[in-house]
Amino acid sequence: MATPPHPLQTFFNPETVAVVGVSEKPDNLGRVISGNLHSFGFNGIVYEVGPDGGTIYGRRIYRAVSDIPDRVDLAVLLVPARVVPEVLTECGRKGIRHVIIETAGFSESGPDGALREQEVAAIAAENDIRFVGPNCIGLVNRHAGLSTAFVTLDPLLKEGGTSVITQSGGVGISILNMLASEGGGLAKMISVGNKVDIDENDALEYLIDDPETEIITMYLEGIQDGRRLMSLARSTDKPILIHKSNIGEAARGIASSHTAALSADDAVVDAALRQAGIARFRDSETLVHYLKALTLPPMRGNRVAVLSRSGGHAVIAADACELQGLQLAELPREFLDEAQTHLRANVISLTNPMDLGDLFDLDVYERLAEGTLKMDGVDGMVFMHTYMVGPDGDRSQRLFERLHELSVETGKPVAVHADTVASEVSRLKQVLPGPVFQEPSDAVRALSLLRDYWKVEVPAPVRPDGPADAAAVRAILDTCRREGRNPLLQESMAIASAYGVPVIASRLAATEDEAVAAALELGLPAVLKVISPEISHKSDLGGVQLSIRSEEGVRTAYGEIMEAVAAGAPGSHVAGVLVQPMLRGGRDLIVGARLDPNFGHAVVAGMGGVFVEVFRDVAIRIAPFPKSAAAAMLRELKVWPVLEGVRGQEASDVDALIDAILAVARLVTDFPEIVELDLNPIRVMASGKGCLALDARMNLAPLS
Amino acid sequence: MATPPHPLQTFFNPETVAVVGVSEKPDNLGRVISGNLHSFGFNGIVYEVGPDGGTIYGRRIYRAVSDIPDRVDLAVLLVPARVVPEVLTECGRKGIRHVIIETAGFSESGPDGALREQEVAAIAAENDIRFVGPNCIGLVNRHAGLSTAFVTLDPLLKEGGTSVITQSGGVGISILNMLASEGGGLAKMISVGNKVDIDENDALEYLIDDPETEIITMYLEGIQDGRRLMSLARSTDKPILIHKSNIGEAARGIASSHTAALSADDAVVDAALRQAGIARFRDSETLVHYLKALTLPPMRGNRVAVLSRSGGHAVIAADACELQGLQLAELPREFLDEAQTHLRANVISLTNPMDLGDLFDLDVYERLAEGTLKMDGVDGMVFMHTYMVGPDGDRSQRLFERLHELSVETGKPVAVHADTVASEVSRLKQVLPGPVFQEPSDAVRALSLLRDYWKVEVPAPVRPDGPADAAAVRAILDTCRREGRNPLLQESMAIASAYGVPVIASRLAATEDEAVAAALELGLPAVLKVISPEISHKSDLGGVQLSIRSEEGVRTAYGEIMEAVAAGAPGSHVAGVLVQPMLRGGRDLIVGARLDPNFGHAVVAGMGGVFVEVFRDVAIRIAPFPKSAAAAMLRELKVWPVLEGVRGQEASDVDALIDAILAVARLVTDFPEIVELDLNPIRVMASGKGCLALDARMNLAPLS
Repeated sequence: MATPPHPLQTFFNPETVAVVGVSEKPDNLGRVISGNLHSFGFNGIVYEVGPDGGTIYGRRIYRAVSDIPDRVDLAVLLVPARVVPEVLTECGRKGIRHVIIETAGFSESGPDGALREQEVAAIAAENDIRFVGPNCIGLVNRHAGLSTAFVTLDPLLKEGGTSVITQSGGVGISILNMLASEGGGLAKMISVGNKVDIDENDALEYLIDDPETEIITMYLEGIQDGRRLMSLARSTDKPILIHKSNIGEAARGIASSHTAALSADDAVVDAALRQAGIARFRDSETLVHYLKALTLPPMRGNRVAVLSRSGGHAVIAADACELQGLQLAELPREFLDEAQTHLRANVISLTNPMDLGDLFDLDVYERLAEGTLKMDGVDGMVFMHTYMVGPDGDRSQRLFERLHELSVETGKPVAVHADTVASEVSRLKQVLPGPVFQEPSDAVRALSLLRDYWKVEVPAPVRPDGPADAAAVRAILDTCRREGRNPLLQESMAIASAYGVPVIASRLAATEDEAVAAALELGLPAVLKVISPEISHKSDLGGVQLSIRSEEGVRTAYGEIMEAVAAGAPGSHVAGVLVQPMLRGGRDLIVGARLDPNFGHAVVAGMGGVFVEVFRDVAIRIAPFPKSAAAAMLRELKVWPVLEGVRGQEASDVDALIDAILAVARLVTDFPEIVELDLNPIRVMASGKGCLALDARMNLAPLS
Repeated sequence: MATPPHPLQTFFNPETVAVVGVSEKPDNLGRVISGNLHSFGFNGIVYEVGPDGGTIYGRRIYRAVSDIPDRVDLAVLLVPARVVPEVLTECGRKGIRHVIIETAGFSESGPDGALREQEVAAIAAENDIRFVGPNCIGLVNRHAGLSTAFVTLDPLLKEGGTSVITQSGGVGISILNMLASEGGGLAKMISVGNKVDIDENDALEYLIDDPETEIITMYLEGIQDGRRLMSLARSTDKPILIHKSNIGEAARGIASSHTAALSADDAVVDAALRQAGIARFRDSETLVHYLKALTLPPMRGNRVAVLSRSGGHAVIAADACELQGLQLAELPREFLDEAQTHLRANVISLTNPMDLGDLFDLDVYERLAEGTLKMDGVDGMVFMHTYMVGPDGDRSQRLFERLHELSVETGKPVAVHADTVASEVSRLKQVLPGPVFQEPSDAVRALSLLRDYWKVEVPAPVRPDGPADAAAVRAILDTCRREGRNPLLQESMAIASAYGVPVIASRLAATEDEAVAAALELGLPAVLKVISPEISHKSDLGGVQLSIRSEEGVRTAYGEIMEAVAAGAPGSHVAGVLVQPMLRGGRDLIVGARLDPNFGHAVVAGMGGVFVEVFRDVAIRIAPFPKSAAAAMLRELKVWPVLEGVRGQEASDVDALIDAILAVARLVTDFPEIVELDLNPIRVMASGKGCLALDARMNLAPLS
């Protein structure tokens, strides 16, 4: 049985298109669409439809879709929102199975629009219609001359390998304008708008298999099915670049009124995209750098050679390397000495960055660039060329072309910076086979993006092996479910322990005397923590006392806790206190997880203590993930050098922390009803001495 | 008595210029200079000089400077380095007092060049010649048509108010190219090269008084007289923008070989520039944003209104506001409701950011923009306009012009983003009276730069009042001087104390028994620290023991310290141990100072403890400074929220810390021979409970 064609196949490659909403009026937007199809060189047949009839571009405007005397592969609707249901029904009757609804005024505009959107979805389902939109500008297939946008595209926009999926039509057009001005080429664009039927994942799935698409760029204000997005991204080697906007509270207002996007926690989005090998960018400038950089060969390491005709630019590029974490490659003395013989004696002494001075000899430049690129110790090159348009113009263009060839030949990226008047840089962008950068720092940035892109490891989404007494956890969770509450502290500790997290010794004490006995048994100094199903943030209430050094101290602390709780949370059911020994030494971290509605369980590891709010030093991964990802989480923390043992300090037991992270990942994978889990603090001791969860907190999903 | 004219007056406004180093050869660079003077419309007289004679531009090339039959105000030398001394001598004989030496091959190229540079300086001094360079491209006075550069300037470069001081000619030309392509205008440029005579401060002094200069931009690879730079900057209201490159180890190699720049500690540079009200930028992109933003009215607060024709761009701008710390202004409901009536009913609901939808009515836009700008709660506006060049072109240009007028009328900045094809944006940049931004995030960035620029307070360089027992300090320092050593721990503590820093109670104990007595007197638990003139980093050696809880413990600790010191620093002169009580509670910070060779004493305050290396959370000010600056230092620390008392934590005694910072500032002001001073840790207790230096370390300048 043959696989049915992807629904977007016909959207991107229709033989007949009907544009519905066209009139003879000069400000009619529908006529812009059909004008664009004409000027863009669409290779199919176009029909115009509008209730007032008339003629346009030498063709009849049909009064209704049903009047079209032909099969219609794709209908593009730009009619008032209130008539969309009626026109869509008509399309169904005519047998049209692919519709783009560009009209705005649906869920993004309020409750009335949302109702209308539901109606449209129902009509489409009844009539077996797949649709893009509403509230979008539709599709572009540059290679087929198809554009359903109601704005004109830049005539400079070439055919190429970049495809674009966008939630906002305006931003999509901005990306195409940028692509055109940088001399880049487009394969396809799709504006998904309110994405009621076809969404970004459908589009991604299509473009992953589209032979004309080499790089996929996405602009999204909300991500719903993050898991599918991650899994699609993992299935392909094509670079995927995403601008996920709407990062915080401030933007949330406009996004929900604009395309009814739901906002996910931005740090989770960030981690999830990285984990799936997707490169995230946050402004078009970075997108430009990415798209240009990705036309270059891979950057397999961190070592850059900088060649410059201007010493000042060489200094600026070296600064940029330092800021971007790139290393200036060490060039062998012999090579530099040999190179020196080609330059004016004694004027400039060669090093990396290499200041070429004002000599401009194409052969010398080429030899230096080639020799440098061929060295094992060099992973990429920034070549900065300063020149005057008149006298140096042609030779400079040849130099740039030659540098591009060298880049291809050696398989290493060469980012060229053309330091000249802006009009010349614009010209170069259109005529050169490779990218040109306008600033030294842009060229360096491009190489660092390229390095980061090729450095990313995409861990397989596998549940890590390890201790997992699922029956014990199930029993505790069932009890909680039955009693309609979240696990208590000691239950949470038991759950963590069942999955292999070492937890501190604890005794539950229901009375003052029991507390004293427990403290003496576990050893002083002791810690007392109140236990109550109603109290989750114990210390805020005065429900925790530390460093209790005597029997008398235990009695006082017990009394004070009970008083504090009675005052702060009157009426709570207090089961007693948990008694623990007070630990000395070690460092406090946090390990936890929370269920993100779009991506699944996000596992978090980070610095603990009073500075956690200040430095927000956390690493996040979406579960499940293998051990390598847990280790990478710790390495990306800012406190990593401290854990490793900075300046003669004791190294921490990193392996024990990794095991704790993996235990949490297993736990939320096996018990997805745990929507929140905090091991806070988890204290890691010196290398080889393990770690201990000192406190644990879990919340379960409400029973449905 | 009249003030003599500034030496640069003649450099920038010569009536007669001699270009020395001109020949008939087509690749001669000297002829480019004289060609530029011609095409740039220089309003004076030009003479060419070259040993081979000949003719050029219909004029004779004189064989020697002495052959010129006229007074010469300014000579521009582009002759081989080896003949520069001879030509300069000739200039002196001819009575030329102002010379630009563009030739390279001096100190930047090695020891031979450095010798030649000294010779040139000596000849100039003997002949009363002021000179710019060597290794530079000289000057541009756009209003007089003067350019001594040996490269051609972009013909788009207009007359304007921006002046440029640059150490690298190449970077100077890049800035002018950028200015031209952005539609900005130039007043003057000076390339100071190796700055042997005229340096950046001389140029700054001149441009501060230059009526044609409104904004001063500097590119520097090294700053020598940082104090003069700061004091010049404080003397003017003209914005000064500096790109100080050569930030670290990586760049240091090339800079010293390029313009023999000395590199200063970058964090000190950063702090010093900010303290003087200078805006620092690190890439040309930021410079562009600054120059464009500074043509707008001041941004007096943090509240922005965002208006956009594309909802997607509105979301992106809101994200950018969040990232740049700008707040979306609250617009009153009544205003939004009124505005709503002008838009297509129910399509878009207004808020901030305001999504204007696809209606384009200039009157409505103008009314909305004006109404919003006039609100008290709005400090600035981002206006994003998406349009097609053909149909919307003229109306859009009128909109931009009107927005500029509104900005001027209301005295609030409006950053406009033109979202259209690149060629149209380039055109707008040349024709509009105000700046145009190519990206929503650029427009937001410009407003945030403007806010930061206007927010900066420039503290007066005054020595703060406070306790200062100078005689006591003098006595200790004299003893140290006599004995050829740095102050010991207890001496450093005494010095700090003499200037009002509270220090922990300490007893010097020469024997074990004395240590026991001291510990019992001060109270247990105790701390013991070894005292030896040879040992500065005591804990690294095992010379410190904390938390000693008994007499027996003191004896053991004393023995262990002596053993550790004997093993780790054999032969040291051990004066005994310092006994201190062990403190509970509080937070550890670092307060200190170090002498920066270029700027003077940098006072540092920061987070202490194990994370200091990881987070590098420090604030720096150049002494002297007033109390307001000390308070600002603490506020700019990342740990500030913790000091203030975050999440119910106890607030720290910030006033006591401020006093300690001011004491350090007074101390290094009064005793500049203290080249390094560390109060580390200084422990700050809860609000009202003061702070205590627990340890102190000082180094004195070597006796000359």
